[in-house]
Amino acid sequence: MCELLGLNSNVPTAATFSFSGLSARGGQTGDHSDGWGMAFHDGEGCRVFLDEGRACDAPLADFLRRQPLRARTVIAHVRKATQGAIDLSNCHPFQREWLGRNWLFCHNGDLGSFRPPLDSGALPIGSTDSEWAFCWLLAQLRRRFATAPDWPELAPVLSGLMPQLSAHGVFNMLLTDGKAVYAHASTKLSWVERGHPFTRAKLVDCDVEIDLASANGPSDRMVVVATRPLTTGESWQAFEPGEFRVFAAGQSVWHAHTLGAADTVRLAAAA
Amino acid sequence: MCELLGLNSNVPTAATFSFSGLSARGGQTGDHSDGWGMAFHDGEGCRVFLDEGRACDAPLADFLRRQPLRARTVIAHVRKATQGAIDLSNCHPFQREWLGRNWLFCHNGDLGSFRPPLDSGALPIGSTDSEWAFCWLLAQLRRRFATAPDWPELAPVLSGLMPQLSAHGVFNMLLTDGKAVYAHASTKLSWVERGHPFTRAKLVDCDVEIDLASANGPSDRMVVVATRPLTTGESWQAFEPGEFRVFAAGQSVWHAHTLGAADTVRLAAAA
Repeated sequence: MCELLGLNSNVPTAATFSFSGLSARGGQTGDHSDGWGMAFHDGEGCRVFLDEGRACDAPLADFLRRQPLRARTVIAHVRKATQGAIDLSNCHPFQREWLGRNWLFCHNGDLGSFRPPLDSGALPIGSTDSEWAFCWLLAQLRRRFATAPDWPELAPVLSGLMPQLSAHGVFNMLLTDGKAVYAHASTKLSWVERGHPFTRAKLVDCDVEIDLASANGPSDRMVVVATRPLTTGESWQAFEPGEFRVFAAGQSVWHAHTLGAADTVRLAAAA
Repeated sequence: MCELLGLNSNVPTAATFSFSGLSARGGQTGDHSDGWGMAFHDGEGCRVFLDEGRACDAPLADFLRRQPLRARTVIAHVRKATQGAIDLSNCHPFQREWLGRNWLFCHNGDLGSFRPPLDSGALPIGSTDSEWAFCWLLAQLRRRFATAPDWPELAPVLSGLMPQLSAHGVFNMLLTDGKAVYAHASTKLSWVERGHPFTRAKLVDCDVEIDLASANGPSDRMVVVATRPLTTGESWQAFEPGEFRVFAAGQSVWHAHTLGAADTVRLAAAA
């Protein structure tokens, strides 16, 4: 298995604090030490950092904990290999251009031997079930959209595809085009909203505490989503099994509970 | 305009020395200060570092000058914007997955208003002529190949496409799938082979000199290609206008002189 981190905000925001917590789980407080990745994405260009080492002590991870790169969307992943060798090609987030946007995908879980047919629009480079699932998702979306969809169009279609994957195993995922973060949990994912008045937060995995009010402006808003809560002192909410959420401009804007049948999505709420 | 760097070797090799020379041209000894990028590619997974700052003093570039990441193929680019804003989305190398491989592309030049039709297989994310040309190349290649071609198949097809781009302006480029580096010069590109017995080399742009014999093993071979020679003390060879070369396993394995007509390629030699 692996651990996921996502951050979505209404202004470019550093993720050094959250990544300090996640990366500790990459070999120090957790055994997710088979590679890691972190991506900063503001909707067009993005920076994706990948490394097959341990996030807790890789020099590049150290650089990213110290260097406050800022973006409206950040996603990160620490890997514990279940399928595929320990290799750069199997590190998340996976990246594909689709309809003129960079799409990034991280997965926590194991889809067993599920290898549905793909087309040449997106093929795996590495050997994980995760990258295969990402390519399969893009193939399904390519059939439905001729121009890059924003979240109001994409969310119902994407959430409707989740049961086809989670029927084959654990499928907790983050997908982003840098404009919105799409999150699905089949077993484990939590999220927290931050906004004025900001509180103090202390990392679970390291002895680091910050005053979020001093790190953010009064109109800043953000959502952090992670496999397990990264901090104490904040109100993390656990996803229910089958829950699908969209985060945009630093808040939860859409959610649905995907059911067991592939074509059934019960909309729980709209923004 | 911009400057290019490519390194191809038969064993994973650090590029800190060469990148120290190139990155100086990104704002210090050259005015290519509108972003930069560097990629390490061994044929499957790859690491692509992009930054919209100046390569001469960006913290990430400093990290890469100090940290000897190794790969059989390294390509890098320092940008002087001619088309497209100074933005992460316009930094080279551009990256696309095609037929299960990561393809990376850097361009030096200006193709004017040339914007040939594209298909949805690869669309630009940023706004440069360079990324558009890369997407166009991939569209042409998709029509001809159903499985990822290695250099003996790809070289004649790719070299035959060069005149269709260079007819529209300056088109010096590097393309790689991590297995081979494809290089084309319409105006300016030089290359040097390194192998036993290794010499000493001194950077043109910085006061740094190394003994290549102590940095490499006796069976190591490599080729360095750059817009302008990076070192003194070595025998750099200039590409002729229209020259196309393939570098693999650290040596020049194929070259052709592309002529003015789109469908005419005179093979000057085969490996």
